[in-house]
Amino acid sequence: MTEDELIAGIGVRLRGVAAPRVLVGIGDDAAVWQPSRSNRSVITTDALVEGVHFTRDTMSARDAGWRALASNLSDVAAMGARPVLATVALGFPRGTDPDWLLGCYDGIAALAERARCPVVGGDLTLAPAITLAITVVGEVRPSNLKRRDGALPGDVVAVTGPLGASAAGLRVAGDPALRSDGRFADVLAAFRTPEPRLQAGRRLGASRHVRAMMDVSDGLSTDLGRLCAASGVGAVVETIPVHSGARRVAAVTGDDPERWALDGGEDFELLIAVQKRAFAHVAVRVAAATGEQLVRIGTITAEPGVRRADGTVIPPAGWDHLR
Amino acid sequence: MTEDELIAGIGVRLRGVAAPRVLVGIGDDAAVWQPSRSNRSVITTDALVEGVHFTRDTMSARDAGWRALASNLSDVAAMGARPVLATVALGFPRGTDPDWLLGCYDGIAALAERARCPVVGGDLTLAPAITLAITVVGEVRPSNLKRRDGALPGDVVAVTGPLGASAAGLRVAGDPALRSDGRFADVLAAFRTPEPRLQAGRRLGASRHVRAMMDVSDGLSTDLGRLCAASGVGAVVETIPVHSGARRVAAVTGDDPERWALDGGEDFELLIAVQKRAFAHVAVRVAAATGEQLVRIGTITAEPGVRRADGTVIPPAGWDHLR
Repeated sequence: MTEDELIAGIGVRLRGVAAPRVLVGIGDDAAVWQPSRSNRSVITTDALVEGVHFTRDTMSARDAGWRALASNLSDVAAMGARPVLATVALGFPRGTDPDWLLGCYDGIAALAERARCPVVGGDLTLAPAITLAITVVGEVRPSNLKRRDGALPGDVVAVTGPLGASAAGLRVAGDPALRSDGRFADVLAAFRTPEPRLQAGRRLGASRHVRAMMDVSDGLSTDLGRLCAASGVGAVVETIPVHSGARRVAAVTGDDPERWALDGGEDFELLIAVQKRAFAHVAVRVAAATGEQLVRIGTITAEPGVRRADGTVIPPAGWDHLR
Repeated sequence: MTEDELIAGIGVRLRGVAAPRVLVGIGDDAAVWQPSRSNRSVITTDALVEGVHFTRDTMSARDAGWRALASNLSDVAAMGARPVLATVALGFPRGTDPDWLLGCYDGIAALAERARCPVVGGDLTLAPAITLAITVVGEVRPSNLKRRDGALPGDVVAVTGPLGASAAGLRVAGDPALRSDGRFADVLAAFRTPEPRLQAGRRLGASRHVRAMMDVSDGLSTDLGRLCAASGVGAVVETIPVHSGARRVAAVTGDDPERWALDGGEDFELLIAVQKRAFAHVAVRVAAATGEQLVRIGTITAEPGVRRADGTVIPPAGWDHLR
């Protein structure tokens, strides 16, 4: 198979994703689209690397493709935006089975179709390990754009769902005996094929009561710390919402599921600071529109730092590539 | 150094690049900008991988950063567009000297400043080798957008400069004795810090006589074949414009400089098909505006395939990652 033949095979896989806004897609030096005149554009880039984020034992080609696109879509959701298009840079070792590479694009295409996010271009290159660097462009009405720096003391801190499932799934995926145990299918799916909260993100973006928003990709302890630092505030965490599937895994493995929820990362839930008096209303609106339950976890404080209700500091212990 | 500290150091390096259109830059889930209302947007992604495109022996950190951005800017130039912003996904092995990584961003920033292309976000991750996946967004007036599929029989085929310097530079960079020989500084620079033809691209984009345009990144033999295939035509190559520096290297090494020009790739000159009667006029306009001389290399034919004047086929022998 030549590079041009592989590109043709990739094109076939991506053809099913509707691309009404794309004027020039795969095949030229760059892709071309017409941005909406009334919106702002957003852009985010995220990479998934074999041996760092996944192994071929723990994730299929399809899952790796899905997962790589999911983290980018989650960032778009966290701005209150909707996806417009994506590009994919794929690196792979010499001799990689072309079917693995095409399977990877099957996973990208499956999520791209669901998210209405056509893949319009990219790059193929040799690399020492499978490397997927994906960029997603999105759009948002100026009034709906959410940043992470608007939280105010007294705001309710909430997430779009319980945490720790992805870390539990990573634990299960790495153990052949656990991996084949059907009881853990939910956390395996949370790790392998996370669902970016696009609908909830748009709904939360449209609420003027939501003052700050970001996604939980590096762990709540790290990401809530970042939201607070950007906003010049602190937070008290009253409840750590641990995913029930993570509790089920931890009961077997002896791990601490609260640690997974605090530090595990990659849950791709949205983390928000909401005006206190509006929280219940916002939660009802989000649940009605998306079926997702906002989970209240704490309160924004004037005092900097992230603490438990008893005052003990929660240090940022999530993912850090240099540690 | 923590990841957040590295990100802060990167931010310092990128701060000097003016970003008048960027509303939210590095530090949130995604960057935000206001697209021009009268333009179309273009997007391109390209990766540079240690051990594949460069080694730390043959390129400094600064050069690697410059080179990674240059190939993307070249794609933007090839659409007739100007750059608006870029994102950078950087993968690096555990234990990489943070100064190397920061040096890489010095190179990115140097070219970004020259090209007026602010870096607005990205990703840092561990990886088995240095991996730079860069995405650039650009803008172009709808009437100035150039694709590769508009060439017509009788059109003049031309490039914005002679070819083969980058391949000669790669040869020199790989040989310590040649590398220190000042006579070869020009081809080393062509390999390490290529200049994307942004001004020429915009000027050629503005000419309605330019019917097809792309950049020469994978080698003339491959890229002219692609332009012809996209346009449903063929081409006769009458002159292969070999860079004088490549000839100088070849005279020492015994290589065939014409092969470098045909198959070497990474020269990042623009390849165009121009209406025959307008070619001289277009060449004068481009030279006056940019100082770059268009070099006529052949003619578009109705018969498919790329041939020499004597009728022998020029097979696509440029870069193919699967070969």
